[in-house]
Amino acid sequence: MRQVRTLGLLGTGVIGGGWAARALHFGIDVVAADLNPQMEEWIRGAVANAEGALARLTFAPLPRKGTLSFTTDLNAMARQADFIQENIPEQLELKQRVLAAVSAHAPPDVVIASSTSGLLPSDLQRDMHAPERFLVAHPFNPVYLLPLVELVGGKQTSAAALDAASTFMTYIGMHPLRVRREVPGHLTDRLQEAIWREILHMVNEGVATTGELDDAIVYGPGLRWAAMGTNLIYHLAGGDTGMRHMLKQFGPCLKWPWTKLEAPELTESLIDAMVAGTQAQAAGRSIRELERLRDDCLVAIQQVLKEFNIGAGATLRALEERLYETAAASARAQLSVAADAAGSGAGPLPLFETQVRPEWIDYNGHMTDSRYLQVFGDATDAVFRFAGIDDAYRKSGRALYSVEAHLTHRCEVLALEALYVTTRVLEVADKRVRLFHALHRRRDDALVATAEQLYLHVSAPPGKASSMDNDARARLASLQAAHARLPLPPEAGRLAGKLAG
Amino acid sequence: MRQVRTLGLLGTGVIGGGWAARALHFGIDVVAADLNPQMEEWIRGAVANAEGALARLTFAPLPRKGTLSFTTDLNAMARQADFIQENIPEQLELKQRVLAAVSAHAPPDVVIASSTSGLLPSDLQRDMHAPERFLVAHPFNPVYLLPLVELVGGKQTSAAALDAASTFMTYIGMHPLRVRREVPGHLTDRLQEAIWREILHMVNEGVATTGELDDAIVYGPGLRWAAMGTNLIYHLAGGDTGMRHMLKQFGPCLKWPWTKLEAPELTESLIDAMVAGTQAQAAGRSIRELERLRDDCLVAIQQVLKEFNIGAGATLRALEERLYETAAASARAQLSVAADAAGSGAGPLPLFETQVRPEWIDYNGHMTDSRYLQVFGDATDAVFRFAGIDDAYRKSGRALYSVEAHLTHRCEVLALEALYVTTRVLEVADKRVRLFHALHRRRDDALVATAEQLYLHVSAPPGKASSMDNDARARLASLQAAHARLPLPPEAGRLAGKLAG
Repeated sequence: MRQVRTLGLLGTGVIGGGWAARALHFGIDVVAADLNPQMEEWIRGAVANAEGALARLTFAPLPRKGTLSFTTDLNAMARQADFIQENIPEQLELKQRVLAAVSAHAPPDVVIASSTSGLLPSDLQRDMHAPERFLVAHPFNPVYLLPLVELVGGKQTSAAALDAASTFMTYIGMHPLRVRREVPGHLTDRLQEAIWREILHMVNEGVATTGELDDAIVYGPGLRWAAMGTNLIYHLAGGDTGMRHMLKQFGPCLKWPWTKLEAPELTESLIDAMVAGTQAQAAGRSIRELERLRDDCLVAIQQVLKEFNIGAGATLRALEERLYETAAASARAQLSVAADAAGSGAGPLPLFETQVRPEWIDYNGHMTDSRYLQVFGDATDAVFRFAGIDDAYRKSGRALYSVEAHLTHRCEVLALEALYVTTRVLEVADKRVRLFHALHRRRDDALVATAEQLYLHVSAPPGKASSMDNDARARLASLQAAHARLPLPPEAGRLAGKLAG
Repeated sequence: MRQVRTLGLLGTGVIGGGWAARALHFGIDVVAADLNPQMEEWIRGAVANAEGALARLTFAPLPRKGTLSFTTDLNAMARQADFIQENIPEQLELKQRVLAAVSAHAPPDVVIASSTSGLLPSDLQRDMHAPERFLVAHPFNPVYLLPLVELVGGKQTSAAALDAASTFMTYIGMHPLRVRREVPGHLTDRLQEAIWREILHMVNEGVATTGELDDAIVYGPGLRWAAMGTNLIYHLAGGDTGMRHMLKQFGPCLKWPWTKLEAPELTESLIDAMVAGTQAQAAGRSIRELERLRDDCLVAIQQVLKEFNIGAGATLRALEERLYETAAASARAQLSVAADAAGSGAGPLPLFETQVRPEWIDYNGHMTDSRYLQVFGDATDAVFRFAGIDDAYRKSGRALYSVEAHLTHRCEVLALEALYVTTRVLEVADKRVRLFHALHRRRDDALVATAEQLYLHVSAPPGKASSMDNDARARLASLQAAHARLPLPPEAGRLAGKLAG
């Protein structure tokens, strides 16, 4: 089969547009063919729209983008393409007719694949020229971001066609899943369709709304399914004996009316197949080890969703807002104590502690540089919140912007290590604050890194330097006074910025 | 109903342990009761194990942890608790008997909730004292990380009990989902069970292995389900007319044998309910707007999974390794050109470009401080890769560690803005390299920020300063020579570290 430099698209709807965007992004030229000439504008718009997200999928250096051309002549497309992907409506006779016609114009070493959601490849290839180069390659919406593609051969499909499709799909960043036997709906849509039909029953019977049923997944099992499927998850839930225990414990539920779908008989051979399958998935990893992986993923996914204030991330964000509010109130109560200690040589503020997240670790096994600055930023936030510069303050259009920073690194920290930051307020002026943070390891109090940071007080719009709130300034000044008797850290004093009121 | 300071647990398996860990973490005392005294050690182990992940769920300041006590006297627990959560085996008669007995010892303003996966609250509360304070509160494994809890009242349950449970669950970081009518399996397990039974059919018929069926979800729909449920996702797939179009297009598939589950009749009233439900979920947001949110989440989730090399993240990691390899080979080919330009005043290296990801934006609408250092770190990686210091080099136990950095900020950047970094090699010595990066906005070439960074060459173990590979040093030195004629940037020269061979 050919090396693919040009992808031909037969049909240009949402799925065709997704294929085009993905292929172009990874350097493949695309010839899109549709009988309707208006689809040219449509597919160019779809590609441009997808590019926003695609550009952020990876920061790795990409080959030069492919070029997109459009034709209403399906046969001309077939003569130019090294690989043809069909995406026309889900009607068996229509697909059969078009595939038969187009295949007459495509050389026999050109693979032809169908994006069909559920039709069988043996039926689709029936009338084709060189039917052995045909297979189903079923992608998922949005095709330009989801890696899954199901590859299904029909009765006449050659191993070479499946291999070539697998190579090409991997090249454009996809995960080819070889389906061993053709069945209506392949694998994924059978599972999705089971959920979908159960949803329709529940809405039909007035048990729940579509929103409640979505919440039932999004806040719970959906978080797991991004990282592990039902089978591996149930293997973990089974404890030390995994899937076998799980089937013993929950086997009886298969007879209960928990869904409108009747289960197969739980025979010994089915149990054996389930156990053997999940053992292979575990690949020698212990339940405890897999639990840790699951938990790490669940924590990291919720952190990411928090940025978008969606689903479990919205729950986490609301929780954190409450926790920060509570802490800020108690920090302000402590402030007078700190101010009272001004004359007595009080030490730096130990306001912030954290732990090295596994996803912060770089290829050397150490915490990535940028995460140091993230930790120092969180410590700065804690100091500002302590001074009363919180969400409400920022909502009034005022904030402290970072202007300059100087970092030093003393020793390395490993995953899960507990850390704390002590902070000194070095200088406070009307429009500026200079802080000095020292990051320590909890286990031995070793100095890990330092940061000297200069912040400018800004009001928006138009984002010009402005005077700080008097109360906040007074609170910071009382800390600065409390810290003024301590010797200046040797790492401090490297900034160029001058403090000016 | 009471304010909850002490949670009583009836039964201490995996679910009881999960409740204990979550409640303790958020400052609630826990009295765990189990007839088997050996469960005390078990639940203490489960709590300690959960704490690893829980400690990383949020960095917000937490109240002091609750204390855990254990008793084999169920009634003594009932007298101490402000809220009782039952987690004993899924046997109706057993649960009825124990709930009836324990409820005689719990004051009537103490809510009693069951963790049952699918039994009906009306059946469970039948023989209880003060049955109106009983409800189902069904959590998901791991209880200490997943926010979902289904709250289901029985025939006798009071609104006050449901409200009190909702308040308490929110307090410990959960998302209470009120289920409007009791049905076997509540909502979530009906949907999960539909997938589960379809899986069993497929394995039983030899269509796929458990691993293939998990992959069918994990690389595709599972990524979406962490952020949006099936209904909202299908609403998006329907294009401008959303769910109504979707039902029209895929309605016929409901008759096809895509699952063993038969669908209900797609009546006008069912269609209306589906459309009204998803309209409410969209809450006035356009399809395009929701698509962008979906895509942002899909990109961010894949980025996070890449850190754990799992599922779609593993696909992305493999893709990036290939892309980096290709780029490094071509960069080395360019190197001789750069070296030839040494005498001709070649400009700084434009080796790295990127785009501001939406999740990098802070509460001011600007790129967070730490992300600047991340971008500079990526630019440093590009320079080192250019010099031949790549994965293979690091696998030989050698690497360049960051020792000191100085950052300046000139102007702000917004989400999705395109950026590029130009780099100068300021100094190269046997064991050290000093770089100067300038970050620019693509649209107007404005200088956004600068970083001067000092790196130390280290060999592991034991992680001592060591000499750089001669070829790498020569490549960096040729760049330094090429840059030496350019004037020193005004921001450079703020580091304390001296270069010494």
